[in-house]
Formats: sequence, C-alpha cells, structure tokens
Amino acid sequence: MPQSIKDPLIIAGREFQSRLIIGTGKFKDYKENAAALEAAGGEMVTVAIRRVNLDKPDAPLLMDSIDPKTTTYLPNTAGCFTGDDAVRTLRLARELGGWNLVKLEVLSNVHLYPDMAETLASLKLLVADGFDVMVYCTDDPVYCQKLEEAGACAIMPLAAPIGSGLGLLNPTNIRLVKEAVSVPVIVDAGLGTASEAAAAMELGVDGIIANTAIAGAKDPIRMARAFKHGVIAGREAFLAGRIERKQYAVPSSPMTGLIK
Amino acid sequence: MPQSIKDPLIIAGREFQSRLIIGTGKFKDYKENAAALEAAGGEMVTVAIRRVNLDKPDAPLLMDSIDPKTTTYLPNTAGCFTGDDAVRTLRLARELGGWNLVKLEVLSNVHLYPDMAETLASLKLLVADGFDVMVYCTDDPVYCQKLEEAGACAIMPLAAPIGSGLGLLNPTNIRLVKEAVSVPVIVDAGLGTASEAAAAMELGVDGIIANTAIAGAKDPIRMARAFKHGVIAGREAFLAGRIERKQYAVPSSPMTGLIK
Amino acid sequence: MPQSIKDPLIIAGREFQSRLIIGTGKFKDYKENAAALEAAGGEMVTVAIRRVNLDKPDAPLLMDSIDPKTTTYLPNTAGCFTGDDAVRTLRLARELGGWNLVKLEVLSNVHLYPDMAETLASLKLLVADGFDVMVYCTDDPVYCQKLEEAGACAIMPLAAPIGSGLGLLNPTNIRLVKEAVSVPVIVDAGLGTASEAAAAMELGVDGIIANTAIAGAKDPIRMARAFKHGVIAGREAFLAGRIERKQYAVPSSPMTGLIK
Amino acid sequence: MPQSIKDPLIIAGREFQSRLIIGTGKFKDYKENAAALEAAGGEMVTVAIRRVNLDKPDAPLLMDSIDPKTTTYLPNTAGCFTGDDAVRTLRLARELGGWNLVKLEVLSNVHLYPDMAETLASLKLLVADGFDVMVYCTDDPVYCQKLEEAGACAIMPLAAPIGSGLGLLNPTNIRLVKEAVSVPVIVDAGLGTASEAAAAMELGVDGIIANTAIAGAKDPIRMARAFKHGVIAGREAFLAGRIERKQYAVPSSPMTGLIK
Repeated sequence: MPQSIKDPLIIAGREFQSRLIIGTGKFKDYKENAAALEAAGGEMVTVAIRRVNLDKPDAPLLMDSIDPKTTTYLPNTAGCFTGDDAVRTLRLARELGGWNLVKLEVLSNVHLYPDMAETLASLKLLVADGFDVMVYCTDDPVYCQKLEEAGACAIMPLAAPIGSGLGLLNPTNIRLVKEAVSVPVIVDAGLGTASEAAAAMELGVDGIIANTAIAGAKDPIRMARAFKHGVIAGREAFLAGRIERKQYAVPSSPMTGLIK
Repeated sequence: MPQSIKDPLIIAGREFQSRLIIGTGKFKDYKENAAALEAAGGEMVTVAIRRVNLDKPDAPLLMDSIDPKTTTYLPNTAGCFTGDDAVRTLRLARELGGWNLVKLEVLSNVHLYPDMAETLASLKLLVADGFDVMVYCTDDPVYCQKLEEAGACAIMPLAAPIGSGLGLLNPTNIRLVKEAVSVPVIVDAGLGTASEAAAAMELGVDGIIANTAIAGAKDPIRMARAFKHGVIAGREAFLAGRIERKQYAVPSSPMTGLIK
Repeated sequence: MPQSIKDPLIIAGREFQSRLIIGTGKFKDYKENAAALEAAGGEMVTVAIRRVNLDKPDAPLLMDSIDPKTTTYLPNTAGCFTGDDAVRTLRLARELGGWNLVKLEVLSNVHLYPDMAETLASLKLLVADGFDVMVYCTDDPVYCQKLEEAGACAIMPLAAPIGSGLGLLNPTNIRLVKEAVSVPVIVDAGLGTASEAAAAMELGVDGIIANTAIAGAKDPIRMARAFKHGVIAGREAFLAGRIERKQYAVPSSPMTGLIK
Repeated sequence: MPQSIKDPLIIAGREFQSRLIIGTGKFKDYKENAAALEAAGGEMVTVAIRRVNLDKPDAPLLMDSIDPKTTTYLPNTAGCFTGDDAVRTLRLARELGGWNLVKLEVLSNVHLYPDMAETLASLKLLVADGFDVMVYCTDDPVYCQKLEEAGACAIMPLAAPIGSGLGLLNPTNIRLVKEAVSVPVIVDAGLGTASEAAAAMELGVDGIIANTAIAGAKDPIRMARAFKHGVIAGREAFLAGRIERKQYAVPSSPMTGLIK
C-alpha cells in the first residue's frame, strides 16, 4: 500500500494521508456523497456555506452522512461574488460551526473565473482575522505568489472552467505556480476524469479537488474510486521519476546476446 | 478494492485480475524485476526468448525470482526481424518451456516499428501450429482487423516508438482499433508514465504493457506501483462513464437556495 | 513573394510551384470548384475516376471549368475497395484520358482507412504497367518504406480519418515517415483548417491535400485561400528553422543597457 | 490577395491592414530588422523605450532603418518592474518622441509574467493622462475585462512564457478572453512558429505579436514571411468557418453514382 510509505499532505499544520478532496454540492443525496467519499479514500470535503441551513444547526443532514469528527469539513464561499460576501460568509461559518480552515473563492461573472483582485483583498481580511485560508485562484504564477505572501495556507489554481471537464488546460502554468510558491498547491476545478488527476499530480502538485467529475459521472462511486487511484498513480509516478522522452525508438530488450 | 468487483481480463480462455503486463528485459537484476512485478500487482511478464539461456534449462535465473507457476510467462520474439525467425523462436520456446500463449513481434529496421506484412504471415503459421498468439502491431485498424481474422487472441498496438516514453500518440486510432476487433486490445510500447496508462485505459482498451517506463524510472518499484494504480484508475473511469466536456463553466454548487 | 524563391515540388519529374492539392468531389458546382482552385493557388486536382462520365468523354463538365492543360488532373481510385478494382479503374482512366500520373487508394470498410496489403499489391501492378503512382496510405513508416521500394512516386499518409477534420493526429509518425522515404510525402485526408496544414508542413513534409476542409467550409473560397497561406507559412517556417522550445521565459528585450 | 477584401484591424481609431506586429529588440542589426518587417508585411513595431538612446534623439539608428512615418512605433515598457517605472518611461517617450499609442507591460520577477495588479494601476494613470494603451497581460479573462473597463484600447494576453516558443498554451482561455472584451485582442509572447500564429488567429483574435520567434529563427527574414502567411491563413480560416470535427470518417467522394 502506498499509504504505508509516509508521504502526508500537510496543510496549515493538519496532516492528511489522502491527496484527494471531493465536493458535496452535486450528488444525488448525502448517502451517495458519503459512499463516494469512502470510495475516494477522502479525508476532506468542501461545503458551500451559503447552501447549508445554518439556522437549523441541529439538523445538518450532510453531517448525518459524513461525520465531521473523522472527515475535515472545508467550508467554501461558492456563490459569493464580492469579497465582503465571502468574508461575512466565512465568519458566520466559524461562529456556527467552529471551522477555521476554510476555502476562499470569490467568483466573477466572467465564466465563474475567480476575481483575483477581490480574492487577494478578502484573503488579507481573513488572515488578519485568524483564519487558515486555502485560496481558489487562476493559474497566474504572479498572483499565486501574492496569495502566499498574503498568508494563504494553500494555493488552488483551476485546471479549466469549473464544471467543464476540459482537463488540465495549461500544465506549464501549473508547473510555474508550483515552483513559485512553497505552500501546498491543490489543482481545483475543471478536471473530467481520473487520468487528468494523475497527469496533474505528475507535475508535482500536492493534491486535487474533484466535484462535478465525480458527482456527474454515470457511476459516481466508481468514478470516486477511479480518482483515488489516479491521484495515487500520479503522486507515485512523480516521486518515482519518469523516463525522459526520446524522439526515436529504443530497444526494450538488449540487442546483444541473442541466440544465433 | 476494485479487484473485488469482478472485471477480469480474459485472453485465450485464461483469466487475469490484473490488466498490467510488465517486461523483464531492462531491470537491474531479477530481484528488482520480481519486486516491480509485485508492486505492479502483475500476473504476466513478457520474456524475450532469444535472450533466455535455453541451452541451460535447469538454470533459469529469472524463474528463480519470478515463479512461472504463479506468474504467466509470455514469451516474445523481440530481436526477430523476419517472420521465419519469429516462428522458429516460438517453436523452440514451446518445445523447451511448454509455452503456448505467446507474443509475436516482427520488427522492422524502421525505428523498430512492427512489420505488419511479415507479422500477419507469421501469425498464420503460428495459429496453424496451435499457438495462442498475442500480436504486437501498429495502430492501423485495418491491419488489426486482419490480425483478428487470422486468429490473434489479443491485439497489441503500440502507443509510440518503443522505449520512447512519448505516450499515447494517437488516441483516435486506438479507439478505432478497439471498435474494429472483438478480442482484447492491449496497448504496448511507448508509454512513459502512469497517467498515460490511465488515459489509454479510459479509451476502453483492455490492458497495458509497460517495460522501459517502469524499469527505466529512477525508482522502478515506485513506478510499477504508479502504473498499477494508473491502470486501475483508467479502467474504473472508463466503466464509470465520465462527464461530457463543456466549453463553458458550470456552477459546481447550485446557484439557487443561497442564503440571502 | 515566396514563389520567387525557387522551391518547387517535384513529383515523378513534374515540377509544381504550389504544394497544395485540392479535391473535386464535394463542391457545390464546378464553378465553385474552379474558384477554390484559383484561391488556393493550386496546380493539381484529384478526380475520382469512378464518378466521371467516362462514356461521354466529349462532355466532361469539370474540364469546362478547370482546364486540364493548365491544371494537372490526378485521377484517383476513390470508391475502390479491392486492388483489382483500383487497377482496372486507372487503366480505364489512362485509356480514355491519357493520364499516367495517378493516385492509388484502396480503402477498407474499417472507417475508410486504406488497406495497406491490397494497396501494396495494386501498386506493384500499376508500376509494372508504367504508371507514376502517388499512394494514399496509413502513417505506418514501415509500410510507407515498402511503398517506396515498390516504386511509388509519392507517399500520401492520412492525417486523420477522411473527412473528419480532426487534424494531424500523429505528428511523430508523419515525421518518421518523412525520414523513412526519399520520395515526396504529401499529407492527405483529415485536416480541418489552415493552421493544421501549416503545422504539417512544419514537420518537413512536401505537400498537402485538402478536400472536405475546403469544400465543406462555410465559405469554401475563403478557406481555399486560408489553406494556400497555411501551406506557404508552414513551408517557409520549416525552411526558416524555428527557435527551440524553452521551459522558462527568456527576456525578449536585453536586460542590460537600460536607462537608469 | 486577401488584403483586397477589407478586413482592417482598428486600434484606438488607427487602421492597420496587417495583423502582425513584430519586435525590435533581438535582431542582429537594424537592417535585418527592417528586412524582417518588410517580409512580415508589418505596419507596426514594438520598441523598448528603456533601450532607446533618448538623450540623442537626433541619432536614432532604428529610425534610419524603419521609417516612423510609414511604420507605427509602439513604445513599450519592457524592463519596467513597477507601475511607477512604466508610467515614467512612457511619459518620457511621449515627451521626446510624441508617441501616444503605447504598450504597457509591467513584469514581475516570476518568470517575467506580467504583474496584473501593478499593470491595472498603471493603466489607470496612463489613461487619465491621455494615452492610448495596449496592455500586455495574462490570459485571465476576468482581469482582461478589468483592463478594458479601465480604458485599455487593446488586450494582449501572453501565449506562453516570453521567449519560450512553447506556443499557445491555453486556447480555451484565449477564447474566453476574446469573448469577455470588445476591444481588439492581440496574442503576445511565447509563440514559436507560424502554424501557432495561424491557430491563434483561428480562435478569432485580432492580431499577433512575434519577436523572438522571428528574430531567433535560423533565417529571420524567411520566418517573418512565414508568420505573415500564418497570420493571414488563420484570419481567413476563422472568417471562412471551418468544418466541424467528426469522430469517424466521412467519404470525401460521394459513394453513389459510381461506375459499375
């Protein structure tokens, strides 16, 4: 088992064995969501705070299916289109649920891409307020570095437009982002299938978030398992050190010593 | 465990749980080879007959490390550049080792690509002679269909020039090959890393052979494990049914029902 | 004008200034076909012999629009699914039209891919019969070399399934084909747009055939012109020698000597 | 000639027939630079102001080779790493050379990627100061829209790290940028060869800047000509409307009406 080889993902001092984070917004029901989490081998789920019934804290259905004692809840600000909204939402989340590790996403109305200026401003407020903030962002290495300098505990560049399933559109930028920051880099949004998660991990990033790709598959549980293996495959391949690409064939069996 | 879900690979009536076949020609030593096989979860290894010391059948070092009782040996004709050579080599192998399930490869001197005309002619001789023949070939769907018609029990198109690590160069052709034949299709030669094995499997092919990509990695054992997970990831994703690609973003969290 | 720099395409002793060959099977009418040829700057058109009214040689509508005295007609065997058919068709064409430079294509029923075994057998008959034969084929470098050895005067590997518009699926194979033969290599079938013609030419191939991509565009005349420029662009770029790819940024303006 | 079909590029009220802008920083000498401009059919050159000998305005060698009366000089701020630097540089340029149409680039030390926050701030100062500002930027559609809102007269997203020759890394983002703004979009930085310019233009963008790809080619004049044709090819193909991609072959000659 690869897990036996110690290679944990550490975010804001918390240690995770799994490098795959899944969502909670698009499954048929909470039972399916929980089964997908188990198949994914996941230890963390993202939760859109604006969708939680915060006024009924004693009836949180998701928590009945996915135990927050054993699974890390990562509250996010999906649906927030201004920094103010995002900050207010996360403060509410902390007050009601005690969550301090959060995912900041401030979206624009341009294809739901993150608005980096608003995101950076919000991040500064949240960091000053004591939050540990994982930040959804574009794959712009300059802005990613600004996010780290402002205190982000993880950088989460998108692979492609959210929900598109287009896969990792710009591996070069993701590589440059990884080189530009020292906190963990988690590829978020836009992946469509397990091999793309593997390919992203092979660039050396630290983890993957998958939501639509799993919840929207014909068989979500099976796709969750596929992503689990894909993330492990990519991580192991990155650590193993792949062969160089060659423009011509190289015999796979020695040509010498053949039987005459 | 995905293995618990019955999804065996069946070749010429033999059933395999693993869809990953590894090589034996390029490891540092037989011990490393055996360790890689274990890490890969493999049940079959390819062996270049022309390199085996067939005149010393009582001292086969590879067999000391990889037990032919529990691992299927797949003798291949690497190093054969004519059909006559290939047929003679496999007959010798059967006489000495009893192997009936074999891998035919008749290479050309053009970048070691298979010579399909010679390959087809040899295949017919071997089938007439009672062999179960898995056939290394180009990704030409017409020739692959001819191979099946001539009695091949598995079709093994190359992903890229052997040993190149260039990955699956033509997914469209591999898809057409898979549609054109009914026997198992195993992608062979040219893969460089685990995500490529996953991507190939996601096209619906039945298995993968990896040799140089594993043996030539900085850490071959770790790369063997990466391929194991990559092949499972790709198979599971194929069976799960991926989401469609969309040209624009789709909210991953419902936009309705947000907290005001 | 690039044409002023002598860089002719020579096929079977005939010299062409244009490296773009267009089709005649899919235009709205012969007038549009002629206009597309002019926009393409073309000097050669492929003509499916089985579609020509050979029994009415004095009323060939295509010839009224495209003058065979100034444009080279390249009779092809589209619609032939056996070598016998192909050979008979081209002999008929020569008898009636005097054409000696021909394009051989023997298609299979597998996605209309060429049947290389039948193609090679037919080629030998045609060469023995004195034809100059340009040969439609797969991108298998071994078979392409066999075709040259059998006397083909040009090798015409497909870019993708015919009419698909998928573009050049396997640049590596096309490169290997170009290296494996000494007669001209013309990329045929499957291109969708002008940039793909340019990219193919940048690999060093000698010319391009485009049919559906031009005739099926919303504005076929404009697309013909686009392909003309694309082919010139790719040829010139190939001859110019492109810069190497670098994994990191390189200042485009010197960093020294800046004003303080 | 495509130029006869009126399809001008209009930037800040200025009309250009050519959609290819070339650089001036990397040629062997000004004579080669002028020859490349002519081969490119270009009407605009970018000039790094910090490299011009502004204290000797009566001896501008570049101007002796490339006449600013017939070629538009586009002063840029290459070498500026803060917004203040960039603004001061362009004000100096206007004072000495009268240039009002300028290219703003504020680079970071992260792989010379533009710093979008500094860029936007500088843009606002320049617009308030009456400049017409073309802006070098990332391919982030949200920030590109901010630049337009702040008064940019053209948006110039990078294709890849400057000087890398990696080509258009993220066509999806360039497409989203083009859709998100109404001013011209000029793809800038990172292209390596002519087919990539064509492919970028086929996305519908309005123009291309090429510097290193031309000046660094083995034959810069020939590569300039290649880019000229590539840009025309891509523009014409975009306007022509390409065929759709199909997953399977489509006969290029009708299958009906064949000679029996």
